Amino acid sequence: MTLADQPPAAALVLQTLLQHGPLSRAEIGRRTGLTAGAVTKVATSLMADGWITEGGRPVTERTNGRPATPVEVRPERALFAGVKVTGEELIGVLADLTARPLASRRVRLDSRDVGTVVLAIARLVDELRTAAHLAGTADLHGVGVTISGDVDSQLGTVQYSPFLNWRRVPLAQLVETATGTPTVIENDVRALTVAEQWFGAGVGLSIFALVTVGAGIGAGLCVAGRVVSGAHGVAGEVGHLPVSGTDRVCTCGNTGCVEAVASTHAIVEQARQATGDAELTMDGAIRLAHTGDPAVRAVFARAGHAVGLALACVANLIGPERIIISGEGVASYDLFADHIRQAFVDHAFGAAVDCDLVVRPLPFEEWARGGAVVAAQRVFAPAK
Amino acid sequence: MTLADQPPAAALVLQTLLQHGPLSRAEIGRRTGLTAGAVTKVATSLMADGWITEGGRPVTERTNGRPATPVEVRPERALFAGVKVTGEELIGVLADLTARPLASRRVRLDSRDVGTVVLAIARLVDELRTAAHLAGTADLHGVGVTISGDVDSQLGTVQYSPFLNWRRVPLAQLVETATGTPTVIENDVRALTVAEQWFGAGVGLSIFALVTVGAGIGAGLCVAGRVVSGAHGVAGEVGHLPVSGTDRVCTCGNTGCVEAVASTHAIVEQARQATGDAELTMDGAIRLAHTGDPAVRAVFARAGHAVGLALACVANLIGPERIIISGEGVASYDLFADHIRQAFVDHAFGAAVDCDLVVRPLPFEEWARGGAVVAAQRVFAPAK
Ligand SMILES: [Zn+2]
Ligand SMILES: [Zn+2]
Repeated sequence: MTLADQPPAAALVLQTLLQHGPLSRAEIGRRTGLTAGAVTKVATSLMADGWITEGGRPVTERTNGRPATPVEVRPERALFAGVKVTGEELIGVLADLTARPLASRRVRLDSRDVGTVVLAIARLVDELRTAAHLAGTADLHGVGVTISGDVDSQLGTVQYSPFLNWRRVPLAQLVETATGTPTVIENDVRALTVAEQWFGAGVGLSIFALVTVGAGIGAGLCVAGRVVSGAHGVAGEVGHLPVSGTDRVCTCGNTGCVEAVASTHAIVEQARQATGDAELTMDGAIRLAHTGDPAVRAVFARAGHAVGLALACVANLIGPERIIISGEGVASYDLFADHIRQAFVDHAFGAAVDCDLVVRPLPFEEWARGGAVVAAQRVFAPAK
Repeated sequence: MTLADQPPAAALVLQTLLQHGPLSRAEIGRRTGLTAGAVTKVATSLMADGWITEGGRPVTERTNGRPATPVEVRPERALFAGVKVTGEELIGVLADLTARPLASRRVRLDSRDVGTVVLAIARLVDELRTAAHLAGTADLHGVGVTISGDVDSQLGTVQYSPFLNWRRVPLAQLVETATGTPTVIENDVRALTVAEQWFGAGVGLSIFALVTVGAGIGAGLCVAGRVVSGAHGVAGEVGHLPVSGTDRVCTCGNTGCVEAVASTHAIVEQARQATGDAELTMDGAIRLAHTGDPAVRAVFARAGHAVGLALACVANLIGPERIIISGEGVASYDLFADHIRQAFVDHAFGAAVDCDLVVRPLPFEEWARGGAVVAAQRVFAPAK
């Protein structure tokens, strides 16, 4: 059974309980603006269907000083599978209604062919479902698949994914058919931003940005409590801000892009040129930089400078309270941290420099959890 | 009498009528989510106090096919004065509840001293008040003063205005005392963005940007229907995006800023260098460019390129449906239009290029009207 069978205000009440924890009915009324009668009706109905329960320590009502038993969400009432798709593997996480991770799995992808990937996702979801059953918890309520690139979450279509070389793939429908479970898809950085907003370093902030540095460089922007998705599906493309020199060509075909000097691929390429070692890997480049090789250190410095300029653009344009920096790239963050911060401080305008820069190494399981959160969100804010 | 004496949903109903024009009570209910009883109560109360009136052609109800008389806002119920403060003059506009301009005045400023400017604002507001009385319309409901720089509209304080060289001036309180009328202040570009959102080229768009080019280069960003103000008061600072070369120093002390090559002052300075004519004015530079002087044309080309890069940054980050380009600079827009568009098209990522670029020459009276709109907004969304 879904929330669709519940009174219209049920989603609002559930969301309020998820954000604030256990609350008395009167407190729910104050926070939602619902009348006492409406809260009672919704609470009774949600309780009958197992979404919430009475529990926790009685609280004293502000209004009349009497004790009241709070109600709270039953996390196990609905489970969600989140799957992050990379070019090489799938990362899956099973999470409950409060996005607490209950199990996780990784599988390698042998091929980037759509059919193969969909089948692998379905098998992974099945494994997570089995894990849930073994734990005696509820069945899967929804699946959220996240993927880098231009993802139209309303249509359920991957418009373009450079890493998989997919164009116009109706992935939500394909996965839904293969798993038999309602499925949503979302851009992976945006999904991670939603997860940070609900349960991570973005909690309580009305404006923040999450910038990821790695194979690609992207960002999720949360403004007025909502993740910006752009009128044409493009938003948060910090990797293609034209702030760096014109000597290198980006994967998008342009010069000047942050990604052209600061993506993992760009760093390796520049380090190979700098050392003359055509076989140098990212790990090798990091080792050389750590041993003090000036040419390779300069490559990281330039990358850090470009990322710092991009952060300054974000700060000057939307004025976030915090920018969270994550992605595979933060594993070698020590090599560019100073350059990022310096370029940011130099180019943040006025009070924009007060924006808090926070580095968070978020493993791919956290990204996958973002998929579970996006799937869970559909319960509270169904697509129109 | 103010909306404070009205039922809580009155502001919502008024706002709905302002945005959609005359509506039947049933239609108001559908659009606001209010019950029929609540709409009737609010409408009766608003009508008794003269905010709305029955009028217009009867409409046929969708639900029961019966004719219903729509209600509509009475524009003359409340008047607002909007004042834009520049370094040289004040521009004042008297507007009604629907932001229709009824009168306008300009006065030169002899001094940028706070006391002098406040007194001049009070005199200007008085003149507008007289104009209102002569027209037999209502008294002033509020004043909105707009000013470029770092303006904290919540506090009512101009934190920093470079053109006036003001720091931490409690302007809202000063003007309110001098005029005896409730006063709000706002950054001028943000106020113009609000005006465009309500009554201009931003109507109906959930994400759009207004970029102004002139003495300064700034932007207002409207995301999810709200103008972004930034966690620390800084937002929309496109003039200080680090996208241009490092050879010129910006007024903010940095290199690389758009303003360092594209503000009026920067264009004049570069044109003087290019021609060796230390007395050259902006008008002179425009004339030389129109006659085909290659060195001066190159200055405009560089400015246009920098502005185009800034627009691409805005498009790549927030993905607006439209970017409105305005400001004094658009008077000579033909000199950089091609370079703006080319740089934008080259650096907008993917579908971000579908963002509509619209040039709107908005006279300072429109900016002043933005102040009136911001003052009017306080009626519908009182500050918390
Ligand atoms: Zn690029
Ligand atoms: Zn600057």
